[in-house]
Amino acid sequence: MAAALSSGAEVRGRTSPNPPVGAAILDRNGELVGRGATQPAGGPHAEVMALREAGERARGGTAVVTLEPCNHTGRTGPCSQALVDVGVDTVYYCQPDPNPVATGGATFLRENGVNAECLDHEVEALVPWLTAVRRNRPSVTLKFAQTLDGFTAALDGSSQWITGPEARRHVHGDRSRRDAIIIGTGTAIADNPSLTARDGDRELPVQPRRVVIGGRSLTGHAGNLHRLGFEQYRGIPEALWRLWDTGARDVLVEGGAHLASGFVEAGLVDHIQAYVAPALLGQGRSVLTEAVGLSIDDALRFRTRRVVQLGDDVLIEMTRKD
Amino acid sequence: MAAALSSGAEVRGRTSPNPPVGAAILDRNGELVGRGATQPAGGPHAEVMALREAGERARGGTAVVTLEPCNHTGRTGPCSQALVDVGVDTVYYCQPDPNPVATGGATFLRENGVNAECLDHEVEALVPWLTAVRRNRPSVTLKFAQTLDGFTAALDGSSQWITGPEARRHVHGDRSRRDAIIIGTGTAIADNPSLTARDGDRELPVQPRRVVIGGRSLTGHAGNLHRLGFEQYRGIPEALWRLWDTGARDVLVEGGAHLASGFVEAGLVDHIQAYVAPALLGQGRSVLTEAVGLSIDDALRFRTRRVVQLGDDVLIEMTRKD
Repeated sequence: MAAALSSGAEVRGRTSPNPPVGAAILDRNGELVGRGATQPAGGPHAEVMALREAGERARGGTAVVTLEPCNHTGRTGPCSQALVDVGVDTVYYCQPDPNPVATGGATFLRENGVNAECLDHEVEALVPWLTAVRRNRPSVTLKFAQTLDGFTAALDGSSQWITGPEARRHVHGDRSRRDAIIIGTGTAIADNPSLTARDGDRELPVQPRRVVIGGRSLTGHAGNLHRLGFEQYRGIPEALWRLWDTGARDVLVEGGAHLASGFVEAGLVDHIQAYVAPALLGQGRSVLTEAVGLSIDDALRFRTRRVVQLGDDVLIEMTRKD
Repeated sequence: MAAALSSGAEVRGRTSPNPPVGAAILDRNGELVGRGATQPAGGPHAEVMALREAGERARGGTAVVTLEPCNHTGRTGPCSQALVDVGVDTVYYCQPDPNPVATGGATFLRENGVNAECLDHEVEALVPWLTAVRRNRPSVTLKFAQTLDGFTAALDGSSQWITGPEARRHVHGDRSRRDAIIIGTGTAIADNPSLTARDGDRELPVQPRRVVIGGRSLTGHAGNLHRLGFEQYRGIPEALWRLWDTGARDVLVEGGAHLASGFVEAGLVDHIQAYVAPALLGQGRSVLTEAVGLSIDDALRFRTRRVVQLGDDVLIEMTRKD
């Protein structure tokens, strides 16, 4: 399973609208003979890549796949058919496929004499894609860096650097695993950001789409975005619809507070990626501009999925409670 | 070392003004033959307790102590002398003793033919005591429970319950390891708190002192504190001086925001114990009432010592950067 999970994680940000799936093939003796991951849209799925590497040794063996093998012929043939054809004995998959078009793979496998068992194991790399398929829109992750007491900038607006180098490096790696980065026109004008995924000065090989939401014109502003290319939409619903329609499944909202509040008010925040610096400011600019509600019972609640210490900073990854 | 560390941790909150030290004795063959911890003030220190349990088997053996053995005769004889007398071969200690009165134990041991080596290993249980001895006042830990975006209560003042049951249980265990809990008169009047360390409805065996800071009279208010007993001081310096003078070394400041800001402005916050709930409020009551500074460079910076997930909540333990 570790081989399947890591294969899938490696291709995050390159597979949309398809999910970043990983697969591993063990031969009859339990030896790892093939591993693969979903190729960019139109290319083979993970199972086919792993089966190619395994060749004849897959016969009578076991396949471990992070997602239930698909059962429909899109741009590629169904993976469940490929697994049957090669004569695999057993298929373990971590998560069922909720996609109404592709589901039914496990049933097809069983009908054709292959054992198929769901392991019901959460797959980090699939979290955004599963959210997107369930909601019929891109999965939205709100990301911010803040002091412990909740400020993303000081009273004078300064915010470089709230977090340390390890956290900033993680932000860039995370950007390269997303389909798009979204900011508001206010941030675009004030910060002139590049919204690229970098390792030091070097751009990472996979870059997300750069998206700006808001009605204000960027003519004469945001030189970096004009140089690198970007998309602009007037409002959140239009942006999400166009992003979904053009294949984006996993988008990151990076600010500012006004746009973040817009996503919160519309009930469109699925996940949070919070980088918390061990520092106190006392007063400053908050994560959101608007109150979620008057009482503690109105608070928007999340489930903590993962906590990672990055140098002195703490990354808390959350998923909305439904 | 694990035996010494856990023995020391078990007596936190019961040893002040002495440090909660743990000790373990191994015989010549490396077998654990004794362990001990500092007894309440006036009672034997950790080394003596462990040596008592080991008896003759300590001769030629090894002692592991979380703090450098003391070298002065206070209410008990010096521990370094006891280790020499019984004929221990080697003493490993995690941290040197910064107390000018008690230091010199390692030198004394070496002069008397015992190997003594400092392991330079941070001992969680000793962090507050070491802070106190260095600063000549009680170690101050600021504790709060907040939403991810930094609010300790909603706009209407409601705050029950920001955090979940695991975090609340941890708070009570933590209280029982402190010498005193401090609140402001505002919190005392508004919340009528008990400030006891409880496990469900049951009071834990060790209770901290209850301290209120502020000039407002509590007559006719704070019935629980009147019932249980408390101390009141007009200001922070007076409170810390009196607490130090009466043996407190490790105090916890629990609120509210006005008192917290007072401690921050006076430069008196050594550690932070932040319970962060995965929730957004947007607006509400902040951890502090005053700005620490105008710019991000003015932020009060801490070092992250430990991060613990408690159910859905995250406890971040920090120590001030000096």
